[in-house]
Amino acid sequence: MKMVMIGLGRMGGNMARRLMDKGHEIVAFDRDADAVAKLVEAGAEAATSVDDARAKAGLPVVWWVMVPAGEITESVITSICENAAEGEIVIDGGNSFYKDDIRRAKMLAEKGVHYVDVGTSGGVWGRERGYCMMIGGPDEIVRQLDPIFSTLAPGLGSIERTEGRLDDATDPRAENGYIHAGPAGAGHFVKMVHNGIEYGLMQAYAEGFDVLKGKASEKLPEDQRYDLNLTDIAEVWRRGSVISSWLLDLTALALAKDGKLEGFSGHVADSGEGRWTIDAAMEEAVPLNVLSAALFARYRSRVDHTFGDKVLSAMRFGFGGHVEMPQ
Amino acid sequence: MKMVMIGLGRMGGNMARRLMDKGHEIVAFDRDADAVAKLVEAGAEAATSVDDARAKAGLPVVWWVMVPAGEITESVITSICENAAEGEIVIDGGNSFYKDDIRRAKMLAEKGVHYVDVGTSGGVWGRERGYCMMIGGPDEIVRQLDPIFSTLAPGLGSIERTEGRLDDATDPRAENGYIHAGPAGAGHFVKMVHNGIEYGLMQAYAEGFDVLKGKASEKLPEDQRYDLNLTDIAEVWRRGSVISSWLLDLTALALAKDGKLEGFSGHVADSGEGRWTIDAAMEEAVPLNVLSAALFARYRSRVDHTFGDKVLSAMRFGFGGHVEMPQ
Amino acid sequence: MKMVMIGLGRMGGNMARRLMDKGHEIVAFDRDADAVAKLVEAGAEAATSVDDARAKAGLPVVWWVMVPAGEITESVITSICENAAEGEIVIDGGNSFYKDDIRRAKMLAEKGVHYVDVGTSGGVWGRERGYCMMIGGPDEIVRQLDPIFSTLAPGLGSIERTEGRLDDATDPRAENGYIHAGPAGAGHFVKMVHNGIEYGLMQAYAEGFDVLKGKASEKLPEDQRYDLNLTDIAEVWRRGSVISSWLLDLTALALAKDGKLEGFSGHVADSGEGRWTIDAAMEEAVPLNVLSAALFARYRSRVDHTFGDKVLSAMRFGFGGHVEMPQ
Amino acid sequence: MKMVMIGLGRMGGNMARRLMDKGHEIVAFDRDADAVAKLVEAGAEAATSVDDARAKAGLPVVWWVMVPAGEITESVITSICENAAEGEIVIDGGNSFYKDDIRRAKMLAEKGVHYVDVGTSGGVWGRERGYCMMIGGPDEIVRQLDPIFSTLAPGLGSIERTEGRLDDATDPRAENGYIHAGPAGAGHFVKMVHNGIEYGLMQAYAEGFDVLKGKASEKLPEDQRYDLNLTDIAEVWRRGSVISSWLLDLTALALAKDGKLEGFSGHVADSGEGRWTIDAAMEEAVPLNVLSAALFARYRSRVDHTFGDKVLSAMRFGFGGHVEMPQ
Repeated sequence: MKMVMIGLGRMGGNMARRLMDKGHEIVAFDRDADAVAKLVEAGAEAATSVDDARAKAGLPVVWWVMVPAGEITESVITSICENAAEGEIVIDGGNSFYKDDIRRAKMLAEKGVHYVDVGTSGGVWGRERGYCMMIGGPDEIVRQLDPIFSTLAPGLGSIERTEGRLDDATDPRAENGYIHAGPAGAGHFVKMVHNGIEYGLMQAYAEGFDVLKGKASEKLPEDQRYDLNLTDIAEVWRRGSVISSWLLDLTALALAKDGKLEGFSGHVADSGEGRWTIDAAMEEAVPLNVLSAALFARYRSRVDHTFGDKVLSAMRFGFGGHVEMPQ
Repeated sequence: MKMVMIGLGRMGGNMARRLMDKGHEIVAFDRDADAVAKLVEAGAEAATSVDDARAKAGLPVVWWVMVPAGEITESVITSICENAAEGEIVIDGGNSFYKDDIRRAKMLAEKGVHYVDVGTSGGVWGRERGYCMMIGGPDEIVRQLDPIFSTLAPGLGSIERTEGRLDDATDPRAENGYIHAGPAGAGHFVKMVHNGIEYGLMQAYAEGFDVLKGKASEKLPEDQRYDLNLTDIAEVWRRGSVISSWLLDLTALALAKDGKLEGFSGHVADSGEGRWTIDAAMEEAVPLNVLSAALFARYRSRVDHTFGDKVLSAMRFGFGGHVEMPQ
Repeated sequence: MKMVMIGLGRMGGNMARRLMDKGHEIVAFDRDADAVAKLVEAGAEAATSVDDARAKAGLPVVWWVMVPAGEITESVITSICENAAEGEIVIDGGNSFYKDDIRRAKMLAEKGVHYVDVGTSGGVWGRERGYCMMIGGPDEIVRQLDPIFSTLAPGLGSIERTEGRLDDATDPRAENGYIHAGPAGAGHFVKMVHNGIEYGLMQAYAEGFDVLKGKASEKLPEDQRYDLNLTDIAEVWRRGSVISSWLLDLTALALAKDGKLEGFSGHVADSGEGRWTIDAAMEEAVPLNVLSAALFARYRSRVDHTFGDKVLSAMRFGFGGHVEMPQ
Repeated sequence: MKMVMIGLGRMGGNMARRLMDKGHEIVAFDRDADAVAKLVEAGAEAATSVDDARAKAGLPVVWWVMVPAGEITESVITSICENAAEGEIVIDGGNSFYKDDIRRAKMLAEKGVHYVDVGTSGGVWGRERGYCMMIGGPDEIVRQLDPIFSTLAPGLGSIERTEGRLDDATDPRAENGYIHAGPAGAGHFVKMVHNGIEYGLMQAYAEGFDVLKGKASEKLPEDQRYDLNLTDIAEVWRRGSVISSWLLDLTALALAKDGKLEGFSGHVADSGEGRWTIDAAMEEAVPLNVLSAALFARYRSRVDHTFGDKVLSAMRFGFGGHVEMPQ
């Protein structure tokens, strides 16, 4: 298929390359002319504007928008919309909030333009391993785009198949690494929860390594003190243990390079998906102690002390036994 | 009654004074001779050793041990035990772990010595307001000591009585500020849970004030930003609101002195009771998300960064989008 | 002052009565004619519609809207707005979301109408004890309404004053039980956090009582088992302990009536404020482990089992040692 | 090597088979004669008692004890100890508490007997995939047992190697699926933390699936409602996503069989390791919000309502607005 890729950063650029490697045609547009030039070297056709891209694209025009979520995505989609013809297809492949998808899908539908939201996992490894995709939008349009999705996806690969999926009744797309999750927004919703889970998994490992490291503390009785080799522990857990995972693989890799992780400051950023997952849980009245604690640990990592800590000290000073607290 | 007070720190000294004020006799012993001397000025009889105290005490000898929990309490009680006569009564008024009470009560029972554990709340305000006490031990002995407990307790005071307690069927001691909670250890167990709750309450206020303070953040849209007066907020909540409490009174007091609490470092200590409450919940399989989170907030307040935070950053770096993390 | 009260439920009706008791005049309107009739008996002037109320009110017309937050509040305020004259004042005394206040204040300002948001704590006890109020809105208008606020508020009463507030520099309103927190929405924002804290405090007590009750479990070693009198424990903690509070008073009252609380199903509702507090914390990046856990405990109380619990069992079955799990 | 295997349940039996498959000799003992008979069919030599096993074993006698942790392990080790000769080696392969290991190692050392603790992960899949092992004990003895450990371990297999471990300086055992973690107890300590992490990971997935499932709730606005196919979602996440893991593989397997998991009751058991991990964190003062919340979710899954829930309702009833709560 022929497709316009807008946004040629690490994700968009690699996805375009993976598509071209397998025979698709890409019209490439980005505000950064260098990024366009590099992709042209890899076989893409350059576009100098949205309308130029439209002129060079096949029919119906298929737009894959791969720019930062929020205002930038909104403005790119708005500019596509301006001169869009009926039947064009806009794919938002970024990390948009699913309620924005719902709103945009309605807005575009008024002009006869189709909207598809794609949540993508795989990071910098995706070009080689393929991209795991969660897709929202009208069934017919998602089917029509299948050549693109099936190319971007990892495919069956060497991952062992799941018993119970081997018969013909199941949707083969899931096994190949992409699903049509539901109508507008469903793709980004599933991706959002995916990221919420990711935060929880990461924090579970983080806390476990904290307990391991803390076991060397000199405050403990000497015969209960262990100076554990965290690098080897991460490695051995990759090997047949119940907690093996790709995140653990990454941890083992990092610890093999530097067992003390001294290159990291300890300030941990978070993106919108973690927060939106908590929001969704509150709308559904679902308890989410682990995923929220994982998010809060990141907030906490970014301040030296909370004001609340001082409130605690002030109360302790107030009821009297704790004059040592003020400094 | 006549009683030996061992340990004349802030708590022991004030309790002895409150007892003497109301006509009880105190034999005073402490390793710190100055502390003894001060209490003698207030009317106590000085003792120079445990055995000297025994000689000066009435019969049966009643010991109130008010020293730091753990090894010191253990060694004082052991030294009392050495020459104890049958019928002596040892009261541990500190913050001992209730399982130590259970063990000690058995140990002393072998010598015919009675053991009573008293958890005390009230802090430095207790001498004036009275001490809220939770007592464990044999029913007969606790009854026998009632003159002491009823003197130390706050009494009915001006606190509004609880409807449903006004008839004669209820134990009047609770209204007067002390209870006989159960056999050995029960007093300290109830006090332990009291402190566990205290941690939870404190953290609830702390987090609330954090949200109030954070509302001035310049990252928020300007019309959603408030520069709130925390001092006035703490005060107004004391006045008819559902969350009024003594801990809030203390918070209002601290904020009235310094609305930014700049005198506090933000490092918050914890004592054993919070941990033991979590332990007890684990033995009982009771979920305790709030009380454990309150304890963990204090642990977290005492380190700059956890190693776990760095593990998170390392994973984020690993899956690729986050090259900004290493420093 | 003369004021229109719209919404004569328990809160609105009692507030109107408190105002009339102290000499204010009330024009009363409610869709429920009985509620109006009852308030007329208590001295109010009846209104049959918003416009009728306007005709009977003094100038400038002051509206106190005390109806359920959300759509009903919105529609009442909209209907007031239709024929509002410049200078009218609309007070939203309900539990509105503060961002709705910000929006409404702007909308009303376009017509020259002033908007004041008042968060109120005190519940059914307020008529007698007075209402603790947190107010948002323009300084001049809030000052103008002071006769109303000072009447509704508890006043100094018998609550001990906070040291450091005794001089003249502090705003005396806080001590009297009401504050002007800031511009539009600030009143409801502070009340929202108040309720968030309330959830945390309540859950801290709830967990503590759970640990106390669980200590009678037959799974524990016999000498570590206590059959504790929760009614007496709640009472004694009211008496001089660090965790005394109004919420504890209510707990003691409930336990004095029924020590097993058998009249309660265990399903616990929540209102918007708890959720909004978490939302606010996420916007501010403030960690809120205790307040969120308190909210989640309520969600969890309302389902028999989460689907997540079954996911856990399914995994346990999968890795093999746990064939007992499926039923 | 020749080794005595005591305890021929699923784990012990399969481990013995794996060892015999690769040329080791096993003397087999179990209270269940059938279990012994079955292993004899697989090539083991039967023993009828501990002393009989000793007579049939080579020198030095190596004992692998694979019985339930706690009293049974203790009694088996005690009975081995009775007639043990200097130089015998006792391996505890169960899930013992690491402090029991420390105690036992000292006890056995007095008789010149060596003690090795081995935490094992891999469950029923281990016979085929190999067992991931974390080992504690004296360096010399652990080296001596290497033929056994290297046989039980998975080996390099097809798992991609970790960059940074490819040179010769690193301990090759970790890559092969076993580590010598440290002195007595260190093996079980690392395994304990492994299980603590496992709880956290499982709960993260569980909460995520709860949010996905809850998105079909009829309480949500119709255009924000998705009826998601959880089976396909679990499958697609296995395919190139950041959260792929073995636990997710198991979840996908379970959902492929029954997308509603109706065969599971929702009651989730827990074993000691989760609790011990929290205990360890409290001794080290390490915050552990995620791992503790994961454990508490299991406790909560096993009761219909907590007493604490009723305490909440009672308070809500008390402050008045909530007469609907009592039933």
